[in-house]
Amino acid sequence: MASTAGKVIKCRAAVAWEAGKPLVIEEVEVAPPQHNEVRLKILFTSLCHTDVYFWEAKGQTPMFPRIFGHEAGGIVESVGEGVTDLQPGDHVLPVFTGECRECRHCKSEESNMCDLLRINTDRGAMIHDGKTRFSKNGQPIYHFLGTSTFSEYTVVHVGCVAKINPAAPLDKVCVLSCGICTGFGATVNVAKPPKGSSVAIFGLGAVGLAAAEGARVSGAARIIGVDLNPSRFEEAKKFGVNEFVNPKDYDKPVQEVIAEMTDGGVDRSVECTGSIQAMISAFECVHDGWGVAVLVGVPNKDDAFKTHPMNFLNERTLKGTFYGNYKPRTDLPGVVEMYMNKELEVEKFITHSVSFSEINKAFEYMLEGKSIRCIIRMEE
Amino acid sequence: MASTAGKVIKCRAAVAWEAGKPLVIEEVEVAPPQHNEVRLKILFTSLCHTDVYFWEAKGQTPMFPRIFGHEAGGIVESVGEGVTDLQPGDHVLPVFTGECRECRHCKSEESNMCDLLRINTDRGAMIHDGKTRFSKNGQPIYHFLGTSTFSEYTVVHVGCVAKINPAAPLDKVCVLSCGICTGFGATVNVAKPPKGSSVAIFGLGAVGLAAAEGARVSGAARIIGVDLNPSRFEEAKKFGVNEFVNPKDYDKPVQEVIAEMTDGGVDRSVECTGSIQAMISAFECVHDGWGVAVLVGVPNKDDAFKTHPMNFLNERTLKGTFYGNYKPRTDLPGVVEMYMNKELEVEKFITHSVSFSEINKAFEYMLEGKSIRCIIRMEE
Repeated sequence: MASTAGKVIKCRAAVAWEAGKPLVIEEVEVAPPQHNEVRLKILFTSLCHTDVYFWEAKGQTPMFPRIFGHEAGGIVESVGEGVTDLQPGDHVLPVFTGECRECRHCKSEESNMCDLLRINTDRGAMIHDGKTRFSKNGQPIYHFLGTSTFSEYTVVHVGCVAKINPAAPLDKVCVLSCGICTGFGATVNVAKPPKGSSVAIFGLGAVGLAAAEGARVSGAARIIGVDLNPSRFEEAKKFGVNEFVNPKDYDKPVQEVIAEMTDGGVDRSVECTGSIQAMISAFECVHDGWGVAVLVGVPNKDDAFKTHPMNFLNERTLKGTFYGNYKPRTDLPGVVEMYMNKELEVEKFITHSVSFSEINKAFEYMLEGKSIRCIIRMEE
Repeated sequence: MASTAGKVIKCRAAVAWEAGKPLVIEEVEVAPPQHNEVRLKILFTSLCHTDVYFWEAKGQTPMFPRIFGHEAGGIVESVGEGVTDLQPGDHVLPVFTGECRECRHCKSEESNMCDLLRINTDRGAMIHDGKTRFSKNGQPIYHFLGTSTFSEYTVVHVGCVAKINPAAPLDKVCVLSCGICTGFGATVNVAKPPKGSSVAIFGLGAVGLAAAEGARVSGAARIIGVDLNPSRFEEAKKFGVNEFVNPKDYDKPVQEVIAEMTDGGVDRSVECTGSIQAMISAFECVHDGWGVAVLVGVPNKDDAFKTHPMNFLNERTLKGTFYGNYKPRTDLPGVVEMYMNKELEVEKFITHSVSFSEINKAFEYMLEGKSIRCIIRMEE
């Protein structure tokens, strides 16, 4: 056990005190892990749109002060009571959703939507006792997605921690915690494009590029990127995208453009924008008889998906996925091995890197659309 | 070859002269089969809702005089030029949709929506020359669905003919031509309920009962029938339905009722009514994480399927199917074998039987909701 086990750790964390205001590096106190919890030393974290979305707190109930961050790699510092399958020193990826291994979802081969540990953006405390493990001068600081990785130390439920190959470089594989697995899994686990098939990817941000990477790894012959921003096509080529459609260039629906390009429709499509119109287009652009469309992007609360039911009757399939259908503890170690075996390329997603004290720069890069992923190095 | 080969055959057919008017048994002339066509002697035919729908011709372009009928069993009388895999004497089921074995759909393992021979309700003549093979005193009589089985002899494209085990009783297996395979295949080929699972069937007509039979054969534990007519439940028990929900009995959406009955939703659902509201309910009543809903019923032209996209994102799947995803020539012989091996029960679908001269009684039974399937015996 580390000498810190069982004790409060004082360390640096980037605290969001108010919605949309720059994070402040503060010295915080991190309580020891309780029942079924582990305390992690975070070495690398990266910034995802979801952090920015809840930091901006437009439309959601604001919950501040809060420590954001959910894509990260770290090492177990100590474990709480009842934790048997992790020990100090293990290399791990914390994940924003979990796997209790007891519920119907965890016992189902098809689902990863754990009843106990499913993503909950409204929860700011630990499940065990409803309290936070973070505080500053006695003031509690809320958790985010059960991970709060913008801190040198954090406390996470054991069900939200994937133990990985200790040889894997944490500054690279940390991006597999969220966005990359979400897109990659949507293609390889859910859309499952056959070798030689055609795949349309809606949205060429990090998740969409990961979906394209999934199509490339699956041996798809045509990978058609769809985005309103034409400058993204050049970058997307690295991820296997070999054709590009900008809906703005046409005066007819993009699903018609794609159907004409592909003699009736693509074999698979993956929607990674969250725009309801893109969801409808992604479904309607797949070929009848065998086409499968997969929804990944998170829609607005009041959106309605609308299509003519004959589009289904003509043997099209529409599925949604959450975190690429990966079960975090069971499946993530295998994704890391895919990287180690050079099947899945991760480096090309990492466009920027900053030290922890520069964390607000990572927000700027993302808001300016410059970065795919910006790594934040916890040790200066 | 039969002595009639290459000659015009005069025989009895039930001709629909006008929309909604009783069929008239007439002596008609049936021309010899042309390129890629076969002439069949029909022994048994049955009545399906689709015949009634186009006979009533409400909303569609009327096409009269016409010979309806598309569920049948018969024997090949003669074959046209180019036909190599059928010969006189073969026992066959004509099918309303076909399998050319050349197009992308036929070559795909996933699709049965043949480019050449896909169902076409607007076509009243043969593909080869655009002419009818039926006439009376020189007046052409239109075909229906390429089958027109309400005639002692009919001419069908070879791609729409399934050669079956000659030991199979045609007065029973004739019902596998359309409705029974449509429902049964929707469950066993598309919904694929695991053993012990729960399945909701929307609509307990012939297709819905066949979908229930598919769930029973698959080993589903709970088969929940949903119908506005409570009298159908008693009959449905024979098909494995062991729970019943009448949406009229509740003042909340039926998907909520089913979710409460099943701790969050059924594992699979199959929609066999064509009502857009039932389609939406069938989708929304499946469990998140793994639920699969399958649409079978044909909607109205102006219907819109509408749901919140989060219902997909929570890992639900929606698929449509056509003819139970069966390829007529390739797969139908195997379904007949399932009947021969007593896996699939067919007799319980057959509630009535009439002679050919009484064919209008079959329409009455169906319009009164009395029959599941009424067999029409061509030989008095």
